[in-house]
Formats: sequence, C-alpha cells, structure tokens
Amino acid sequence: MPFRSHMDVALAEARAAAARGEVPVGAALISPEGQVVARAGNRTRERSDPTAHAEVLVIREACAAAGSERLTGHDLYVTLEPCAMCAAAIAAARIRRVYYGASDPKSGGVAHGACVFSHPQAHHAPEVYEGISAEPAETLLKAFFAARRSGDS
Amino acid sequence: MPFRSHMDVALAEARAAAARGEVPVGAALISPEGQVVARAGNRTRERSDPTAHAEVLVIREACAAAGSERLTGHDLYVTLEPCAMCAAAIAAARIRRVYYGASDPKSGGVAHGACVFSHPQAHHAPEVYEGISAEPAETLLKAFFAARRSGDS
Repeated sequence: MPFRSHMDVALAEARAAAARGEVPVGAALISPEGQVVARAGNRTRERSDPTAHAEVLVIREACAAAGSERLTGHDLYVTLEPCAMCAAAIAAARIRRVYYGASDPKSGGVAHGACVFSHPQAHHAPEVYEGISAEPAETLLKAFFAARRSGDS
Repeated sequence: MPFRSHMDVALAEARAAAARGEVPVGAALISPEGQVVARAGNRTRERSDPTAHAEVLVIREACAAAGSERLTGHDLYVTLEPCAMCAAAIAAARIRRVYYGASDPKSGGVAHGACVFSHPQAHHAPEVYEGISAEPAETLLKAFFAARRSGDS
C-alpha cells in the first residue's frame, strides 16, 4: 500500500524544484524499514547535468550512503512517470517498488515508449503503481510549463 | 567517418576500468572541433553508483565543463552498446553521433530491448554506428567475465 506521506515528500521536492526554475519533479527513496533515506527534485539546470533527474539524484545519494550499487528492498516515490534513463537506473539499483504520480505520454519510459521494465535487458523489474497523488503532481507541471510558455521563466 | 584514434581512447579507458575491477567499458566524448573533451571508464563499484557507466560519466563531465545540459554537435565513442539508461542520457544531451564497439544483446538499449532511440519519447535520436573496433572491445569483456566466473576478481 502506498504511503501518501512518502508521496507528500516527493511533492514537496517537486515544488522546491519549481521554485528553483527546474521542471517540477520530486522523488523520495524509502528504506525497507520505511524511512526516507533520500529526497530530491530535478537539478538539471542548476548543475548543467542532463542526468540530474530527481530519481537519479536519490538513487545516487542512497547508494553512496549505503556503500552499495543496489538498494534491494527500497521503494521509490516520484511525482511523474520516470523516463527511460531513470527507469533503467531504477532497474540497475534493484529497487523493489515504484510509486509514481502523473502519467507522462510525452517523455515516459515505463508505461510509454521504451517501456524499459518490459524487456529482459532490464534484468530487474520493480512492482509499479501509478496514479498516486497524480492530480497535484500534474497541476505543478502544467503551471510550470504554462508559465514557461508565457515567458515568466 | 569514425576515427579509430577516438575509439582507441575509449578502449584505453575500458582497459583501465578492468584494472580497477570494473566492467571494462570505456567512452570518449568528442567536441565538434574533434577534441577529446571527456574520457572515462565504468566506476560503478568504486563509487557505489549504479549510474556511473562510462557514457554517463563523460556526459556529466563534458556538460559541467560546457555549463550546459546539451552537447550539440558532440560525438560519443563507447566500446559497448549503451544500455537504456545511457541511451536516454545520450538523447537528453542531444549528442550528434554515437559510435560503439561490441553489440550487447544481454543489456543493450540501442539495438536491443528498449531500443530507446526508436521511440518519440527520446526527443532526439543520434546517428548510430556500430561495430567500430568491436573485436578488442569484446575480447576485454569476455576476459573480464571469464576471470570473474573463475573467482579471480
């Protein structure tokens, strides 16, 4: 069962990303004991790093803290459907479950396009639950892109 | 036309990775002017970072140096077919051409499985050239995995 409070952490990170001028996506990584071991929002602009998506940032942070390339038994909460890069990173890290908010037909790589977990090359497929707190996640994204189109950011 | 000397840089990085006990894959990123702007081999073990593939490392380094999320006009040489994570990072960075060595039916995400560049969600598809110096790249990988199976590493 997804924990709304964990997705609330991811949503808070998405809002913080928007405030920094980043695409508002946030993530939280949860230990097998239910603790938030890493939380992050996108930082691709700030760091000039196209790989600095929220999911990659929490995976890197948690792996560094654990001293391991694998996060067996950990769950990831993220406000938007992961792209192919993040999906493959999730598989490589052996994350147990992925809970995501908004669907991403344009850039998603889980339920769209590359469908990364659907191929044996992924080596590991987490359980995936979509639509968790999707509405606030979508609202944040729509407001961000509407503002960008109108030249506010 | 691929430059063997650029792939030789990538192969040298793959050999250095093997010497560190890492899966021997190397990459070199080439500027539009033909300069090697970043070179790296896998460091997933050393850094406890499942995203520290050679391709991601050179993209992150070159983007940081350029102060940009995009490497328009840059070419990537890598000794092995990129996985889905690296392929999506390559697309995000808008890399112009990818030259790779060995094919990777087991974990590849360019010509196998997710076929990341084949979906509109990738937003950018580089030109892809495979089989460049494939033989020495494969030899390195086979020797590494044979040694690992026999308990040498």
